[in-house]
Amino acid sequence: MFFASDNGAPVHPSVFAAMERVNAGYALSYGNDAATHALRDRIRVLFEAPEAEVLLLTTGTAANAIALSLLTPPWATTFCHRHAHIAEDECGAPEFFSGGAKLTLIDGPHGKLSPDALEQAITQTGGSVHVAQRGAVSLTNVTEAGTLYTAAELSALTAVARRHDLPTHLDGARFANALAATGATPAELSWRAGIDVLSLGGTKNGLMGAEAVVLFKPKHAWEAELRRKRAGHLNSKLRFVAAQFEAWFHDDLWLDMARHANTMSARLAKGLAQLPAAEILHPTPANMIFSRLPAAAHARAKAAGAVYSQSDDSLCRLVCAWSTTTGDVDALLAAFRG
Amino acid sequence: MFFASDNGAPVHPSVFAAMERVNAGYALSYGNDAATHALRDRIRVLFEAPEAEVLLLTTGTAANAIALSLLTPPWATTFCHRHAHIAEDECGAPEFFSGGAKLTLIDGPHGKLSPDALEQAITQTGGSVHVAQRGAVSLTNVTEAGTLYTAAELSALTAVARRHDLPTHLDGARFANALAATGATPAELSWRAGIDVLSLGGTKNGLMGAEAVVLFKPKHAWEAELRRKRAGHLNSKLRFVAAQFEAWFHDDLWLDMARHANTMSARLAKGLAQLPAAEILHPTPANMIFSRLPAAAHARAKAAGAVYSQSDDSLCRLVCAWSTTTGDVDALLAAFRG
Amino acid sequence: MFFASDNGAPVHPSVFAAMERVNAGYALSYGNDAATHALRDRIRVLFEAPEAEVLLLTTGTAANAIALSLLTPPWATTFCHRHAHIAEDECGAPEFFSGGAKLTLIDGPHGKLSPDALEQAITQTGGSVHVAQRGAVSLTNVTEAGTLYTAAELSALTAVARRHDLPTHLDGARFANALAATGATPAELSWRAGIDVLSLGGTKNGLMGAEAVVLFKPKHAWEAELRRKRAGHLNSKLRFVAAQFEAWFHDDLWLDMARHANTMSARLAKGLAQLPAAEILHPTPANMIFSRLPAAAHARAKAAGAVYSQSDDSLCRLVCAWSTTTGDVDALLAAFRG
Amino acid sequence: MFFASDNGAPVHPSVFAAMERVNAGYALSYGNDAATHALRDRIRVLFEAPEAEVLLLTTGTAANAIALSLLTPPWATTFCHRHAHIAEDECGAPEFFSGGAKLTLIDGPHGKLSPDALEQAITQTGGSVHVAQRGAVSLTNVTEAGTLYTAAELSALTAVARRHDLPTHLDGARFANALAATGATPAELSWRAGIDVLSLGGTKNGLMGAEAVVLFKPKHAWEAELRRKRAGHLNSKLRFVAAQFEAWFHDDLWLDMARHANTMSARLAKGLAQLPAAEILHPTPANMIFSRLPAAAHARAKAAGAVYSQSDDSLCRLVCAWSTTTGDVDALLAAFRG
Repeated sequence: MFFASDNGAPVHPSVFAAMERVNAGYALSYGNDAATHALRDRIRVLFEAPEAEVLLLTTGTAANAIALSLLTPPWATTFCHRHAHIAEDECGAPEFFSGGAKLTLIDGPHGKLSPDALEQAITQTGGSVHVAQRGAVSLTNVTEAGTLYTAAELSALTAVARRHDLPTHLDGARFANALAATGATPAELSWRAGIDVLSLGGTKNGLMGAEAVVLFKPKHAWEAELRRKRAGHLNSKLRFVAAQFEAWFHDDLWLDMARHANTMSARLAKGLAQLPAAEILHPTPANMIFSRLPAAAHARAKAAGAVYSQSDDSLCRLVCAWSTTTGDVDALLAAFRG
Repeated sequence: MFFASDNGAPVHPSVFAAMERVNAGYALSYGNDAATHALRDRIRVLFEAPEAEVLLLTTGTAANAIALSLLTPPWATTFCHRHAHIAEDECGAPEFFSGGAKLTLIDGPHGKLSPDALEQAITQTGGSVHVAQRGAVSLTNVTEAGTLYTAAELSALTAVARRHDLPTHLDGARFANALAATGATPAELSWRAGIDVLSLGGTKNGLMGAEAVVLFKPKHAWEAELRRKRAGHLNSKLRFVAAQFEAWFHDDLWLDMARHANTMSARLAKGLAQLPAAEILHPTPANMIFSRLPAAAHARAKAAGAVYSQSDDSLCRLVCAWSTTTGDVDALLAAFRG
Repeated sequence: MFFASDNGAPVHPSVFAAMERVNAGYALSYGNDAATHALRDRIRVLFEAPEAEVLLLTTGTAANAIALSLLTPPWATTFCHRHAHIAEDECGAPEFFSGGAKLTLIDGPHGKLSPDALEQAITQTGGSVHVAQRGAVSLTNVTEAGTLYTAAELSALTAVARRHDLPTHLDGARFANALAATGATPAELSWRAGIDVLSLGGTKNGLMGAEAVVLFKPKHAWEAELRRKRAGHLNSKLRFVAAQFEAWFHDDLWLDMARHANTMSARLAKGLAQLPAAEILHPTPANMIFSRLPAAAHARAKAAGAVYSQSDDSLCRLVCAWSTTTGDVDALLAAFRG
Repeated sequence: MFFASDNGAPVHPSVFAAMERVNAGYALSYGNDAATHALRDRIRVLFEAPEAEVLLLTTGTAANAIALSLLTPPWATTFCHRHAHIAEDECGAPEFFSGGAKLTLIDGPHGKLSPDALEQAITQTGGSVHVAQRGAVSLTNVTEAGTLYTAAELSALTAVARRHDLPTHLDGARFANALAATGATPAELSWRAGIDVLSLGGTKNGLMGAEAVVLFKPKHAWEAELRRKRAGHLNSKLRFVAAQFEAWFHDDLWLDMARHANTMSARLAKGLAQLPAAEILHPTPANMIFSRLPAAAHARAKAAGAVYSQSDDSLCRLVCAWSTTTGDVDALLAAFRG
């Protein structure tokens, strides 16, 4: 009964197999190996983006911070949701990597930005040498509230950015869950929706530590590589990161795992909805639920061995993973129910 | 016949086994797991340093840059050998992490600093608000030239630092090879020799991507954790980094692998010494040899499938790994010999 | 009829005289001169702070950014009002000087923070390695809205900081106006009210370009000097900055000028209050008024040669300086009145 | 008998007059004033560079650091002489402003770089993601050794930079002395000699605190303004910096002052050359002499009231200023002579 985070789940067994496969013999380090090259080509095909450049990394914070440092200069500000991961959970990594760029925090219900709110934030920014200039627009999908942007919603937001000639970034720590939930293709939820740079997260969906920055506009590619190296994020045995992704993409495992996590979350949401004392704060299309429950319900769940995050006496976050079982979900619901 | 780098070697099989062991079930992320805690305790015992703090990372550049950023403020300079990895191979990571601290590059034969040269560099630094102030002393063992500092040599150098009240760092990317070559204990080659912070490298010696910053003076521990997070180096599934080290330390595997690499290197050096046309540039106590050979010898070796770095027509670097075989060594020598 | 800013006013004639006085002959540069030493001693006496250290600078942005970089580490956040100068008017200087620290923007009516709002912001910050840590509390007096903190109000705010063991900064770009308006002593509006570091601004009150960082806790003194130098803010002929302050303090000129500006502003506010169509947004104890006026009134004023800032069709900011005359004020009012 | 530095000399009286002239009445701040605009136009004419952009500042360190931050990205290195001011006297300002770019220190006799040494340094830099990339070439004229580059010498050096597609910077803290010594025009010693960005120093030659960054390629202009503001170097009453330069350029005062300083220095050099015990280390075409003298000579000079820098028992630096008199020079020589 582990619902603390999808990054607390085990690694999918096929990932180990893939890593052991690339372990046969020697390989040039720092990405100059066949597995890394093949993975880049695979991502290009999957995203229908033959010119995309791909940087492999092991953490999502690094992916986000490197991506933003390419798009927002030190004297500018990145526009994002008030509760974006880059704002609340990275200990200032975007500020560090960018050399001190700001974040403009924009409010919006259910973790989502509206085009109007984004437009307003942008137009209130810049205009003189005394103020932070306009930088990138950073969106998150699945959002930090567990909600979704459709491709059309993303396009409406990136259109605002485009109108102001601003670049766009998507934090896709749960990109696979967004694909599974929307049925959209990778291209539809990224560059076709106006995204310039994608942080593609594998770690929360069954990988050991594998993230990618996908640059749909390759003009930043060499700068990105230098920033990665300089930040200590060019792993020498990069083939083992590539291998993780290779296993992930094989036979659509990434989508299967994400779909399973989403399905378990839907089951959990449905169960919670039937509990009179439970309140669900946001729509739950993906694998993350924010809910209020009575203290007694929490006490029972904890006593039954459930592990999850609680912000106060009632509010909790419940995250399903690729490995969550119906048994886990039903046991948690039973404990909540009492 | 792969002699390009020890980080091109495969991962030791027992590392996979250890990673699969910690993959059983769920675990709290970001190092709040049992494997990470156990590993920290193990390192404390191994280093006879019950108060040491340990930060797990996946790259040596990150380990070095985080370590130095704790010791050298932005307005100071780190003293190091002209050819130190931090100076020549990290694309400015120390400058980035420290917020612009300098490196003072000190010459010395065979990749080693002498106490006199260090003393001179320190005394020439500082003295007014207009100049860079004195920061940490950073040493490397095994050095970038493949040579060794004994515990006594390290102590003589750190004594210079201590006399000027400066902190000390050891880049131990090949620390295990240094242990194997000297027969010293981990403590003897680190804190007992006056080292405050150690970058302990596992990746070049059979691990997949596992490095540690060992803080012998725990006062920097919390700042170190914040710097790690902020640099995107707090991996969520940290148990898999811990597991690699666990396998490494088990039954002294790390020392066995390092000893084997050193032995293969000694065999190679001995063979080279018997080639009239070969010149060996530095003593070769560990697993790395710099040698000049005729262009024809290189041509034969490359034709035979050997992979290694060459700086010009004659100069090459040959690195043995835990997985190098006597067959590899002898085949390379045969090709060189012609 | 210049009401655009107090930094558009002329320099007081006695400032030139003082600068010419220190121009007699040669002097050691970079602050090693008698005028700079004498000024430091004078500030110590004026502030009843015999151990205070003083850094002379030529801009307020430099003073604020250096001050904050001493108090808030890169991974922390400075607590300030949403409309603080450091947040809105310095193009990210605090982020640059600190190496990427954040600002936490706190709302409050009339440009002022309440202890409760500050307490809440602090308690919502920190708690894990993933988030920005708690840094300095930065207050502004006179505020950006032209309002005042009394010594008691400052003390209540710094008490909150103290309870959380956080350092405090006061942006005193208009410190003299605050002294003149409250009748408090320099000590009462600074360290006696719990302020650790003061940005003492002279440029907006009759000087040519003279600001000081006053460190009431001298432990930061050497670091402050290094940060000043490294930021290119250690002027070589520093005696001319010292001379400006010397003229300022002589015979309480600074207070006389500030009092005059405040008096002119009060006259203007009184006149505006008598205009039915004018709305004054905040209390006006000092030398700055925010007012809404009909577009026609603005048109008449501009036609009559008035210069001031306007944010939209109705909202304007009117700032009086040491050199503003009753004629200026009355002419502006007459133009507004039509 | 003050020979410590040209920045210890008094401000030329006409500078005060010019500052008082612009003090008549009010002016928009932050450079939006007539004096600043006129000065920019004047510099364009003087340098025959109608598109040049000009940033006014108050320190040379700021001018250099802002200039270099425009030309050398964080992951690159600036090529300069080992004893360049940017390397030895700015407490790491270039590293701070650039976000951690390196300096590559190149040796060369008499404070000068040779094209060959520059070429070698450049070709040894770059080539992989692991190393610092190639950044700007920064030259100094008058050099830190008091020597000169002719226009032809500058052109030969910038040709090397151009061949590698690298931008160029000239630290002209004593640019006027170089003009006076060579008889070249401002254009000939700057953009016509291949310089992209010039730090034009006035403070060492009779101004109070006035420096300019002259951008001959205006593409960097807006970034330069943002960097200046963000570094706290956009002085609000900028007209007083412009006024200093206005006085400087009026009737060629800058060249007259520089020529006088050079002449006094030549007189001093000639006198030293006649002292058997004195050794002059470098050619002395400008206003700065490095000389070795017996300890007794130094003792006599100090006893006679001479002020100058001494590095050890014998080596001293003697700098003449616009205000140095023949009496000063002869008195110093007499004291040395004994």
